[in-house]
Amino acid sequence: MKRILALAAISCGMAFGQAADVCTPSVYNVPSAKYPCVYPDHRAMFRVNGPNAQKISVRIGQGFDMAKGPDGVWTVTTTPLVVGFHYYSLQIDGATVADPSTMTFFGSGWQNSGIEIPEPGGDFYQAKDVPHGHVSQQSYYSKVTAKWRRAFVYTPPDYETNTKGRYPVLYLLHGWGEDETGWYSQGHVDFILDNSIAAGKAKPMIVVMDNLNAVKPGEDGTIFAARGLPQPPATSAAGRGSAPAGRGGGLADFTGATFTEMMMTDLIPMVEKTYRVLPGRENRAMAGLSMGGMQTFLTTLVNLDKFAYIGGFSGSCGGRGAAFDPKTACGGAFADPAAFNKKTKLLFLGIGSIEGPGTKNFSDELTKAGIHNVYYESPGTAHEWLTWRRSLNDFVPRLFR
Amino acid sequence: MKRILALAAISCGMAFGQAADVCTPSVYNVPSAKYPCVYPDHRAMFRVNGPNAQKISVRIGQGFDMAKGPDGVWTVTTTPLVVGFHYYSLQIDGATVADPSTMTFFGSGWQNSGIEIPEPGGDFYQAKDVPHGHVSQQSYYSKVTAKWRRAFVYTPPDYETNTKGRYPVLYLLHGWGEDETGWYSQGHVDFILDNSIAAGKAKPMIVVMDNLNAVKPGEDGTIFAARGLPQPPATSAAGRGSAPAGRGGGLADFTGATFTEMMMTDLIPMVEKTYRVLPGRENRAMAGLSMGGMQTFLTTLVNLDKFAYIGGFSGSCGGRGAAFDPKTACGGAFADPAAFNKKTKLLFLGIGSIEGPGTKNFSDELTKAGIHNVYYESPGTAHEWLTWRRSLNDFVPRLFR
Repeated sequence: MKRILALAAISCGMAFGQAADVCTPSVYNVPSAKYPCVYPDHRAMFRVNGPNAQKISVRIGQGFDMAKGPDGVWTVTTTPLVVGFHYYSLQIDGATVADPSTMTFFGSGWQNSGIEIPEPGGDFYQAKDVPHGHVSQQSYYSKVTAKWRRAFVYTPPDYETNTKGRYPVLYLLHGWGEDETGWYSQGHVDFILDNSIAAGKAKPMIVVMDNLNAVKPGEDGTIFAARGLPQPPATSAAGRGSAPAGRGGGLADFTGATFTEMMMTDLIPMVEKTYRVLPGRENRAMAGLSMGGMQTFLTTLVNLDKFAYIGGFSGSCGGRGAAFDPKTACGGAFADPAAFNKKTKLLFLGIGSIEGPGTKNFSDELTKAGIHNVYYESPGTAHEWLTWRRSLNDFVPRLFR
Repeated sequence: MKRILALAAISCGMAFGQAADVCTPSVYNVPSAKYPCVYPDHRAMFRVNGPNAQKISVRIGQGFDMAKGPDGVWTVTTTPLVVGFHYYSLQIDGATVADPSTMTFFGSGWQNSGIEIPEPGGDFYQAKDVPHGHVSQQSYYSKVTAKWRRAFVYTPPDYETNTKGRYPVLYLLHGWGEDETGWYSQGHVDFILDNSIAAGKAKPMIVVMDNLNAVKPGEDGTIFAARGLPQPPATSAAGRGSAPAGRGGGLADFTGATFTEMMMTDLIPMVEKTYRVLPGRENRAMAGLSMGGMQTFLTTLVNLDKFAYIGGFSGSCGGRGAAFDPKTACGGAFADPAAFNKKTKLLFLGIGSIEGPGTKNFSDELTKAGIHNVYYESPGTAHEWLTWRRSLNDFVPRLFR
């Protein structure tokens, strides 16, 4: 009976009626791996083979010490975890490494393990029987950075067949320590867009996902990090005890102004030459998460002639505690509310409900100052990818209207 | 002076004239990671932070024990390694894990570390200033396996603009324990095709990279593995000491006949419906590496009405030591050489020179039996991705002529 329930649970995902003792393998496990697994109450169980180790712990926001069995296999069951996607790592006798049982995800500058604590009924980011777009890898040479770069580009389901059609474009950025793979690997951008387009909510659009990191030859990529801009919350270099040996100092190969220059000089022209794109600011949106949200505000607020839609998911130019003065905040972008509102068709602020009140306060201050904005709060989620998937899902139906 | 040489070496790659003591970071390191690095004589140096570990070794084909420094950082310099791409892992007090300093690569059923020992002048698989195609992710539902699947699809540089053009298709498979990401991640299929097309050597074509693993609901995926078919040479489950804990028994979720049925029922129809494809067997090729080469022969030799071009890279239906009888070998596919030669426009066998004589012997036996075939030997390489990149580079100019 337990086996039948287990099979049912696996085939149905995390559903009501599931036996309380069923631990379902995380969706990000490598094929055939039964662990880590997740209980219906959101506790997770981890297992690692380490016959000669003295101490192994799982670092997932906080640390959980594992216990060694007589077979040399270490196990631990956590307390209930917050719903959503979490990077995690193992500490094996002081070495910080990924768990070999999961696929890996680029965050905090290295290939972490990942686990999903599923939300009940959360299927907007999953593959459904609807028309599917493509995510493709696009190589291009950047004159500004003097390097080859890679973007991922989502084209909507009808892009291949509607060969006379032209499409608006959303430029979408990852966060600190992540890269251009984030939105399609952890974020499921393709399924979110497919499902939203199929439901008639979002307009068919192209989504361009590039890499935040952009420095000119000889430029110091650590400048941005040194400005006190956001650090990752869970598995930061500090949170991992120490960075893996062999790593140089600068995880962030990044300066905000250079990214903007690269985007204007190299990325947007490449996209508009390569893809069938609708012209003009009203067909161009930009959004990003965490540091990518900050970059979005940095780039767009001084380029309102090029962007009519702006989104920050757990990251923008405000909400970090400084007193808000509409005349000077965000480089003075909001000094003339009427002019700003006339130009900007959408200013969107998304946040997880357990990330703190900063973003809500910022939205309220903007509203008080007469700046139109949309505030979206993801219930019960933290500074992680479920917040950002939900933010994107709420954001894209509002674009290009 | 040493610093100037080091900078020159980094900017030029591994080039002649490089100082003998310069250790160049591997191209697959995470951003800013200086280790692992490779010396001009192909020794590699590894560094791992493990302050409380008792023993750490690097497993790269063979094991190399690391030595602990007073700062808790372990290091080792290997003997010279064979040129090409190598999966590798760390053993930390008995736990088999990836090195956090590199990007990860799916092989042997998990996310290994990877290192490239560069070949002098090997630039055919690198990004050049030529028109670039796209590699895109294609989701589709398989009726045969009753699951969503994912393929990666390369479309050539002119595919987007030449909207009336139709293209021939190469179906290209990975090896044991790998997945559909292999050819574009480790194999650089996009740059190989871009460069070969730009040089006028290969015809513009679509390349479809799917996943070998295909079982029907309830089918046992370990059947194929149990038949004694190829195991990976370097970082096999056995070679890694023991599989990571939490892993189930069957790494190979695979039966050869089911893959063929899935390909005919689901994959090819999806591709021909979704992409602008030229019809018929003379516009359809199939190739694969190692177990993917074996699958290619399994699939094509009983479907010669559907494929005119066949390639096996370090894997086919022969060369594994059994006595060759042209009447019965490979299911009798070669029993009538004239008929086979008339139908098959290319039978290609690629191998690394240090993989042993089996494939050369098989090619000679086929030739003796009157079966036209092309034998390609990659000089100085092993059962790894440089052999397969070179095989692909030699293979694609011969297609669709």
